[in-house]
Amino acid sequence: MKPVEGFSKKSKEQKIAWLLETYLQSSPQDKKVLDQYLNQDDNIQKLHEEFSENTLTNFYIPFGIAPNFLINQKLYAIPMAIEESSVVAAACKSAKFWLDKGGFKTKVLSVVKVGQVHFTFKGEVPKLQEFFRSYLYSKLFEDTQSITENMQNRGGGIINIELKDKTADLEDYFQLYCEFETVDSMGANFINSCLEQFSKTLEREIQGSDLFSKQEKESLTTIMCILSNYTPECIVRASVKCEISQLSSDPKDAELFAYKFKQAVEIANVEPYRAITHNKGIMNGVDAVVIATGNDFRATEACAHGYASRSGKYKSLTHCSIEDNQFEFWIDLPISIGTVGGLTQLHPLAKLSMKILQNPTARELMEIIAVAGLAQNFAALQSLVTSGIQKGHMKMHLLNILNSFGANEKEKEYFIDFFKDKTVSYHLVEEELSKLREKA
Amino acid sequence: MKPVEGFSKKSKEQKIAWLLETYLQSSPQDKKVLDQYLNQDDNIQKLHEEFSENTLTNFYIPFGIAPNFLINQKLYAIPMAIEESSVVAAACKSAKFWLDKGGFKTKVLSVVKVGQVHFTFKGEVPKLQEFFRSYLYSKLFEDTQSITENMQNRGGGIINIELKDKTADLEDYFQLYCEFETVDSMGANFINSCLEQFSKTLEREIQGSDLFSKQEKESLTTIMCILSNYTPECIVRASVKCEISQLSSDPKDAELFAYKFKQAVEIANVEPYRAITHNKGIMNGVDAVVIATGNDFRATEACAHGYASRSGKYKSLTHCSIEDNQFEFWIDLPISIGTVGGLTQLHPLAKLSMKILQNPTARELMEIIAVAGLAQNFAALQSLVTSGIQKGHMKMHLLNILNSFGANEKEKEYFIDFFKDKTVSYHLVEEELSKLREKA
Repeated sequence: MKPVEGFSKKSKEQKIAWLLETYLQSSPQDKKVLDQYLNQDDNIQKLHEEFSENTLTNFYIPFGIAPNFLINQKLYAIPMAIEESSVVAAACKSAKFWLDKGGFKTKVLSVVKVGQVHFTFKGEVPKLQEFFRSYLYSKLFEDTQSITENMQNRGGGIINIELKDKTADLEDYFQLYCEFETVDSMGANFINSCLEQFSKTLEREIQGSDLFSKQEKESLTTIMCILSNYTPECIVRASVKCEISQLSSDPKDAELFAYKFKQAVEIANVEPYRAITHNKGIMNGVDAVVIATGNDFRATEACAHGYASRSGKYKSLTHCSIEDNQFEFWIDLPISIGTVGGLTQLHPLAKLSMKILQNPTARELMEIIAVAGLAQNFAALQSLVTSGIQKGHMKMHLLNILNSFGANEKEKEYFIDFFKDKTVSYHLVEEELSKLREKA
Repeated sequence: MKPVEGFSKKSKEQKIAWLLETYLQSSPQDKKVLDQYLNQDDNIQKLHEEFSENTLTNFYIPFGIAPNFLINQKLYAIPMAIEESSVVAAACKSAKFWLDKGGFKTKVLSVVKVGQVHFTFKGEVPKLQEFFRSYLYSKLFEDTQSITENMQNRGGGIINIELKDKTADLEDYFQLYCEFETVDSMGANFINSCLEQFSKTLEREIQGSDLFSKQEKESLTTIMCILSNYTPECIVRASVKCEISQLSSDPKDAELFAYKFKQAVEIANVEPYRAITHNKGIMNGVDAVVIATGNDFRATEACAHGYASRSGKYKSLTHCSIEDNQFEFWIDLPISIGTVGGLTQLHPLAKLSMKILQNPTARELMEIIAVAGLAQNFAALQSLVTSGIQKGHMKMHLLNILNSFGANEKEKEYFIDFFKDKTVSYHLVEEELSKLREKA
């Protein structure tokens, strides 16, 4: 086998031909698999291909909907793009549970985003600090005026710039630590453009200043300029609250449920092995909405998990309190998303998701996403502390198992009925299906 | 607006009709958007709908390919499903860079997965421990024989079960801490099924034992049974290595590149704001392969970020060393994925991804995914410490920007040429396009 030359320059058809020949024994069946996912409309197909590089076809993620979410007294149907079974069902279950208990309340706590110019400098630190305060700071704002103008008109821009001495952590290491408000955009391009200008200004001004020695000037090295996906101050709270007695029609069950539920949250606070899975479940809900609205789930994942570890111990993103017979459950979710820019208005389904959500602002979308995360966690803990997770999950997964055996509609109906009062297992499906087929 | 009743029972058409009426002013355009993403083949459409619940249509993620990955002396083309521009291009760039420098080396360090039965117990702890050691331990294995039989035949099963006293962290809190080997499956269903049986056995045996008092028996409460997505001992290493002089044709550039690259990794080790973004970039590559192969990216995200924070400070997942003129760069990635089970063989494109990767075992797929993560980080740092990230990124994003202005093919060609020697910005496209259109 030989490396391929100039692959990116080939047409999609040539790329597919190369792939089939090189790795798939020129299988016509495999070609058919790639082809069957292409859109019939060339314009739509082309649009999606251009989102990325070397695109061969479209990978399908189910796009579904979870209705009946009462958020701040307004009813939402939340679009979710997710391949895992049970996630949309869990969202619906939580939505319904809280619908007659006041629903979800949300609040954006703050919306500050961060970017950094990382550089090294060997020299007199107080001199650098004085230079920054008295001269460079205003220059940095000046030089980025053309970049920030539009953002300022929309109510955002650069909030603050600090020079941070990080030499205690790493020799000669400094930062321009910059805070931004990016209104309805996620802001990555805006922030990175500002930062790259900051670094040019920093270099130019230090090189051109009489204050610094030749050696100091030569020592200045910009390592990199980049936004941070960590936004602990771009954060939203979502919560639910009810009387313990409302948790179940049986008062004893309600007490036990509240106790076990709170224990489950406490366990996630003291045991990272559990906390990571606990938060993974939250992100099932979060990411489904992030993807459906054309946002970047790697960014939201990194931020949420980084935040969960901020105390030095990885902990739960959700919290539970029981006081004066009131059960309260909430999440503080740091998240940076947009409702304009990126793919949010460019992917037709992302755009439609925004319409379904009544064209929210970025703040409103943060709130909806936090609710989706909280709802998912509520449903997961509810299952875990009562019937266990396998019963519901395997029921949802049943159709997947049946499809893997190529079951027909009649067989599917049989099994949905068969498992009404049994726990689904792959094994049991296999056994029962072979019996069924022998009989037929 | 009123809550909707029995939504999950409605047909797809009824769900869409309800959504249009309730949230989209019955817009025929919006109906068209949903419809245009349906597959023409009813069987394929049905298959994808059944992966999840309340599915209305298919959300497209570009499915692309990054060729020329030399991994352990074998050439791979890596399938990637990713919506973000630049990720596939970055993978290709890294693959090509390392192709003539020995390529990527990988090694699975271990494959242990973890699950826990979390329970509370008020009573004599030494008695519980003795009961576990001398009696319960073997019972737990016995009672799960029917579940583990198949897995054992494939070379996996339950490795060990420990009783953990966690009362120092939380009052009355204990765990059955269980380790599993799940061979080529991710193993979630297997592990959860074992755990749920463990908890039944635990309850039954304690209730039926003479050793425990009535009070002790009544105090036993299983809070939950669940696998952990945190698998620090299911971990793979991928690395690249070359002489510093091979990093650039110009020896001075090579030295500077090596210095700045290593600094960039060091910075991610001392600064969580950077580390979270650094690892986010790694996950761009990891998740693209995880998704393309039908695996669960929330699980891999949670595990990777949790692992990054294990020391008490959130750090880089990649490492760089420069010794004796050798530049080495590697990742230790904890990751639990499967090549059978879940959607891996059920989603036709996931199945095809496996074929493109020459039907790897789960261990081999772990290795390929770690390479994709390392390659992504290499490309990102390479851009960051040289030209900056915006130049390349905005070039890749140019088509998205042009599409957002509804640019035609001729205009696209004009702008690709126009930006050959300029940095792309949304602003500049807007300005230049309006000039161009005025002229026309």
